[in-house]
Amino acid sequence: MDAAGFRSHGREMLDYIAHYLETVHLRQPLPDVHPGYLKDLVPDEAPLTGESWEDLKKDLDRVVMPGVTHWHSPHFHAYYPTANSYPAILGDMLSDGIGCIGFSWASSPVCTELEVIVMDWLAKLLRLPNEFLFSGEGNGGGVIQGTASEATLVALLSARAKIFAQMLFADPSSTHGQILDKLVAYTSDECHSSVERAALITLVKMRKLPTDEQGSLRGPTLEKAIREDKERGLIPFFLCATIGTTSACAFDNMSELGPICSSNDIWMHVDAAYAGSACICPEFQYLLDGIEHCTTFNFNPHKWLRVNFDCSAMWVKDRNLISGAFEIDPLYLQHDNQGQIMPDYRHWQIPLGRRFRSLKLWFVLRMFGVAALQQQIRKDVDLAKMFESLVRSDSRFEIVRSVTLGLVCFRLKGDNSITESLHKKINDDRRIHLVPSIIKGTYFIRFVICASATQQEDVSFAWSVIQELTNSLIPS
Amino acid sequence: MDAAGFRSHGREMLDYIAHYLETVHLRQPLPDVHPGYLKDLVPDEAPLTGESWEDLKKDLDRVVMPGVTHWHSPHFHAYYPTANSYPAILGDMLSDGIGCIGFSWASSPVCTELEVIVMDWLAKLLRLPNEFLFSGEGNGGGVIQGTASEATLVALLSARAKIFAQMLFADPSSTHGQILDKLVAYTSDECHSSVERAALITLVKMRKLPTDEQGSLRGPTLEKAIREDKERGLIPFFLCATIGTTSACAFDNMSELGPICSSNDIWMHVDAAYAGSACICPEFQYLLDGIEHCTTFNFNPHKWLRVNFDCSAMWVKDRNLISGAFEIDPLYLQHDNQGQIMPDYRHWQIPLGRRFRSLKLWFVLRMFGVAALQQQIRKDVDLAKMFESLVRSDSRFEIVRSVTLGLVCFRLKGDNSITESLHKKINDDRRIHLVPSIIKGTYFIRFVICASATQQEDVSFAWSVIQELTNSLIPS
Repeated sequence: MDAAGFRSHGREMLDYIAHYLETVHLRQPLPDVHPGYLKDLVPDEAPLTGESWEDLKKDLDRVVMPGVTHWHSPHFHAYYPTANSYPAILGDMLSDGIGCIGFSWASSPVCTELEVIVMDWLAKLLRLPNEFLFSGEGNGGGVIQGTASEATLVALLSARAKIFAQMLFADPSSTHGQILDKLVAYTSDECHSSVERAALITLVKMRKLPTDEQGSLRGPTLEKAIREDKERGLIPFFLCATIGTTSACAFDNMSELGPICSSNDIWMHVDAAYAGSACICPEFQYLLDGIEHCTTFNFNPHKWLRVNFDCSAMWVKDRNLISGAFEIDPLYLQHDNQGQIMPDYRHWQIPLGRRFRSLKLWFVLRMFGVAALQQQIRKDVDLAKMFESLVRSDSRFEIVRSVTLGLVCFRLKGDNSITESLHKKINDDRRIHLVPSIIKGTYFIRFVICASATQQEDVSFAWSVIQELTNSLIPS
Repeated sequence: MDAAGFRSHGREMLDYIAHYLETVHLRQPLPDVHPGYLKDLVPDEAPLTGESWEDLKKDLDRVVMPGVTHWHSPHFHAYYPTANSYPAILGDMLSDGIGCIGFSWASSPVCTELEVIVMDWLAKLLRLPNEFLFSGEGNGGGVIQGTASEATLVALLSARAKIFAQMLFADPSSTHGQILDKLVAYTSDECHSSVERAALITLVKMRKLPTDEQGSLRGPTLEKAIREDKERGLIPFFLCATIGTTSACAFDNMSELGPICSSNDIWMHVDAAYAGSACICPEFQYLLDGIEHCTTFNFNPHKWLRVNFDCSAMWVKDRNLISGAFEIDPLYLQHDNQGQIMPDYRHWQIPLGRRFRSLKLWFVLRMFGVAALQQQIRKDVDLAKMFESLVRSDSRFEIVRSVTLGLVCFRLKGDNSITESLHKKINDDRRIHLVPSIIKGTYFIRFVICASATQQEDVSFAWSVIQELTNSLIPS
């Protein structure tokens, strides 16, 4: 394919994407295919000579589309949203077109510098304390990670490196293994699976502490755990607090937890993967009360801020705490301007290579503008409130936990089995897509406003489907 | 931006990219900017209301381009290549347009199934043993990781989980820390920085074993190290062998190392990040001799196979060894078809979320066809041979190591300082871009055929620049 072919086939691809997104509401959100469906539709081997664009394009409808779960259907209410938008796609196209790898400043200066700029923009939108900004007075700064899982892992690894250094300074004869056996980290019993994964990877004991009736980890609980663990000779060093848990969008109490972490020299990492986006609206910034106590903070613009995956924004108060934990610096990656003014992001992340991801964030912030992004958040929260009212109006149902953002957790009153049956019916029916969760033995269904195109009529539709399927279980 | 805006601005973006790639040879590969250049060119805050496409587009030339290192300039000969191509960009556009997240089969079945298919296609092109294929007789399969760094880390973590399980089975009273202090892994003294990073992350002792005069780790060296370590009470459990090192494209001797690993129950991971792509050509498949002994194997189609970053292909002989090391399985990620036939790739990688990356690989394999991709590899190897001849024709220079693929390591005869001076001159001159490396005290410059558009005249041009700058150091 030459440049002319790219221009012409590219136009067809633009049309294909625009048409797809304009008509995605007509598609069944969850496909009907069974595992292994694709094997019979494609050859066993790559072709020896190139195929025509026309043949490839035909296969988009024949091969690809039948197996897509349509995350951008307004009838998709599962997991949490993944963002997309036309400006983000254009930004990603440019990233691919330039095709640079930004592991150091010199490997493509703008790739680093634009990230520095837009991470400061974003920090200001969330009103993060000044010390998290590159342009702030301290030694802070932000970085785009691929996912919140990676941000949590980077935070935990950096905290582990810091405590190792302290312990080895105090007793140079101790081994990593001896120190490791004493380390203990904390999170809540409603944390995301990736926090447990990070503990598996780092070999750190991760205690999942009990939360209150709203799913919030509270100060006294942490204090008690620290006291117990210190009495056992363990070394508490890390807390992963969550602002907007996956199961039920619960919020750990940072204002209580933060001072306890500070006075015990515990690294507080805050995972606000989903809820963080809402904090561009002043009325939701109270969710970040206590953020000044955290060492690292993370949220995913790729969830709810119109930036396509992957774009997970992470800030650190003292960048040396992160970069120092990972620094390996062979000659072939060094450059003259190293360590001056601008970060070398390869020391901030797990992979070496990195794409020009700040472009899509920059495109989105500039082309939408802050007001339109706030508007999107508010619309989605209002739709969730609308769904909550509908559920509350039907006495067969109950709401689990309070509704703060775009997630509504609901169930049929009574035993779990009846809600499990309802979820199975919804899943088999296929008109809408929702996933269940379970907290402290209570099974419920999660309803999330996901696609940016979702409107009131889509919420009404979902509720009518749920009511219809419920009627076959329990007469109304 | 609505669909009509996307169609029209998207066309301008296609033109911008096509024009950029058609004229990239006219740009200076390494930009002149200094750290911090961007701050004065952009505002301090994101705009409140959306800006026009025209304003954004103007900034591509004003703000972005001056800070780009042009990896696709035919005068860029640094690091190793990063691939790009028009078909890959189109595939990525579609991935962004669909915007699904493929962490489980159900979260978008085609995202998993197409990856299964194309990873088998790719395995067949490299003639990997049948047991690495999903369609093979064993329990093997492939996965697209983001980078080779992540593949190495996933392999090392999985190997660590395996040895932990064995040790804990033998002595349930032992702690992770106690076992960890006894573990030892191996790699060569010319390994990539990411192998050392993986050791930092996993807390595993990584011994860098000496290589022969061609930079190859040999069997007897490994055997000796294992014997020594076992005598010291250590537990050897992992080897990362490299096929095509970063410094000098050296090849560890898998045929010698493999049987030693097998007989000592050592997990052999093979990192062929750069060189692996060449193995789609039958004449280079000898480079993989001994691959049947490895447990995991990885190479980067995003380096030399026209697939844009990120696309790092990893295979495993027994997928349970990998998925078992990472499995955490909350209800909200489970689905009815779990664990049957198709993998849930979230258990194969560090992050939870994943893009539809197989699309770009599928587009590239289909639209180029195998023959054209082989042709590209052969052209680049021929160009490297051409450069080698030019260097050899000038008695002031010497070649370091034999030239096998697209990398030529060369230096001026004599002290390192003279080659260091030459590299500084090349860097300051800016017409071509190369980076240095150092092995066992010998400093040299790496010349790599990087951009796919590179032709004989570009190699001649580079050599003329190098000769001209050398003349100012040493009269010819």
